[in-house]
Amino acid sequence: MNGHRRAAIVGTGLIGGSIGLALRARGWYVSGTDLDPAHAARALELGAIDVIGEDSQAEVTFVATPVSAVVPAALKALASSALAPDAPLRVVTDVTGVKGPVLAGIEDPRFVGGHPMAGSEQEGVDGADGDLFEGATWVLTPTSTTSPEAFAQLRTIVSSLGADVIALAPDQHDILVALVSHVPHLTAATLMGLAANQAEEHGALLRLAAGGFRDMTRVAAGHPGIWPDLCAENRAAILATLDQLVTSLSEVREIVATGARAELLDRLEAARLARRELPSPIWGTEDLVEVRVPIADRPGALAEVTTLAGGLGVNIDDLVLTHSAEGDRGVLILVIEARSVDRVRQGLLDAGLHPSSVRRLD
Amino acid sequence: MNGHRRAAIVGTGLIGGSIGLALRARGWYVSGTDLDPAHAARALELGAIDVIGEDSQAEVTFVATPVSAVVPAALKALASSALAPDAPLRVVTDVTGVKGPVLAGIEDPRFVGGHPMAGSEQEGVDGADGDLFEGATWVLTPTSTTSPEAFAQLRTIVSSLGADVIALAPDQHDILVALVSHVPHLTAATLMGLAANQAEEHGALLRLAAGGFRDMTRVAAGHPGIWPDLCAENRAAILATLDQLVTSLSEVREIVATGARAELLDRLEAARLARRELPSPIWGTEDLVEVRVPIADRPGALAEVTTLAGGLGVNIDDLVLTHSAEGDRGVLILVIEARSVDRVRQGLLDAGLHPSSVRRLD
Repeated sequence: MNGHRRAAIVGTGLIGGSIGLALRARGWYVSGTDLDPAHAARALELGAIDVIGEDSQAEVTFVATPVSAVVPAALKALASSALAPDAPLRVVTDVTGVKGPVLAGIEDPRFVGGHPMAGSEQEGVDGADGDLFEGATWVLTPTSTTSPEAFAQLRTIVSSLGADVIALAPDQHDILVALVSHVPHLTAATLMGLAANQAEEHGALLRLAAGGFRDMTRVAAGHPGIWPDLCAENRAAILATLDQLVTSLSEVREIVATGARAELLDRLEAARLARRELPSPIWGTEDLVEVRVPIADRPGALAEVTTLAGGLGVNIDDLVLTHSAEGDRGVLILVIEARSVDRVRQGLLDAGLHPSSVRRLD
Repeated sequence: MNGHRRAAIVGTGLIGGSIGLALRARGWYVSGTDLDPAHAARALELGAIDVIGEDSQAEVTFVATPVSAVVPAALKALASSALAPDAPLRVVTDVTGVKGPVLAGIEDPRFVGGHPMAGSEQEGVDGADGDLFEGATWVLTPTSTTSPEAFAQLRTIVSSLGADVIALAPDQHDILVALVSHVPHLTAATLMGLAANQAEEHGALLRLAAGGFRDMTRVAAGHPGIWPDLCAENRAAILATLDQLVTSLSEVREIVATGARAELLDRLEAARLARRELPSPIWGTEDLVEVRVPIADRPGALAEVTTLAGGLGVNIDDLVLTHSAEGDRGVLILVIEARSVDRVRQGLLDAGLHPSSVRRLD
């Protein structure tokens, strides 16, 4: 460990293990502990940590326990790394999806709350992945008591793992996550539940579920394990957001009931514009088009199309493969820059493929 | 036109034009009309019809007008093709997304209501596509007055265009599409609207919108043009379904408010199981895994991975490409059969790529 920067991980599960792998790949020396000794041993075996144990000299400690255990674990790490005035800065952070209740329990300039928005659907160090944070958003929640140096140091470390860092106040984080994650998840599950009830009577229902419904309910396929804790910890923000949603849906109901066409168009148009502004290259200022290519559902068919695009020097911005109900054929939906569309279409035709509709994504 | 089967299209827009292209590709002789002569002329120019005009001898007439014009257009087609008893069977159908109000206006054994669930987000014959119905679900809504022969004939024709046909009673169709299409669409727009309001105050909000939120709100990016008509025509079913959704969301609110963990888990687990049963090879009985591969965001990177899979004889069941906020790197998510995962992982490593997590889709 001589010459290496030192990090400690408390809770070597999926997220803790992934942080360990990512840090070690970047030359850090990582110590790790877990309430369950078997988990820590497995993390060591998988190379997620260098050694089992605490490290009061660690430059950074990641507390990656379930949310209910974060506050005592963080306070313990802070207490054990009490320092001489000339010692290097040490910072402690956590990784849970709700920040207000955690921060309320820890007032220390060396603690910065965190929430890497990645991988929460998995469990256990066997799912750990050193690239998990590449391109992911990682929220940090400094408060008025946080030392600016501690924040700057943690920000640099987290960025080095490939994550995009956003700083938010803890309560703001919790409200925003209720809106873009917790309530959408509960809504998806609710829609899926309604459909499932109907499907018992009407077997055909699920065959009518086209791409839009599949998209809307995809998150409902995840394991429900973490949701009771998230809902308990972020209760206030979730309830407020559910109330807003129910109010808005009731307004929409009134609009449909009274046939208020202009008002309906206004709402849908506002939503359309907002959806287009979601930050992503796909919805950026570049003109993009969607090309649909029917393909046979066999090994190689997909590669044929993507190789062709690569060979033409065309970047594919997004790509979805859908299947027919029989599963013997599919449609490949490519999103490419508008200026490339003629080249791609010709290339596909030359290859004996028949691109069907080309639709501008606007 | 000698020797060719004959079809007529009333309303040569996106769907009418696509039907024309699909029929002509299969050897049919297609006549077409449109209220706007320029649209009919454009359809002729694009090869979606053989000739502009009506055809009282057509074996099948597709009425592809906006919903408000369907009943008079269908009645006219039925009247003009009144037949001698020994003449071949002629059938008339429509393609609108609401069936009860249409069928209430037409009682004729030769009329069968229809709803191809494809392409409705586009407008105009310039977006027409002869492959639009490949793998799409096409609902037919025979009633007690429908002639079984007319239904059988239309079913065969529609199937020949590549569509999967489902027969439903008109009112049943309307209730089910309210549940899997109309209300999910309104809900997506409502969620997006709430997020947009918050985003005005909190610029960071949309950067927190990860894959789940993007999935849930994707349909809200579509053009709102058709929705006032759909909502007006299917009002009763949409209102009933919105009421169910609001009731269910209020129950979820109560569960969160009271911290009823077991009840929350039950609901989420039921939704998870139902989502897994959505018909698709991805959610079938085959063991599937998700492999994440970080890739550079440049032409060819995608092809590199898919070619490799094709070269290994591995079929890719689903594929999503996500981007980092900066857009300079991405993660490719492949869904493949579990038995292929070792081969794919080794192949990726050999190619200098680093597959990260492998997750079983269960």
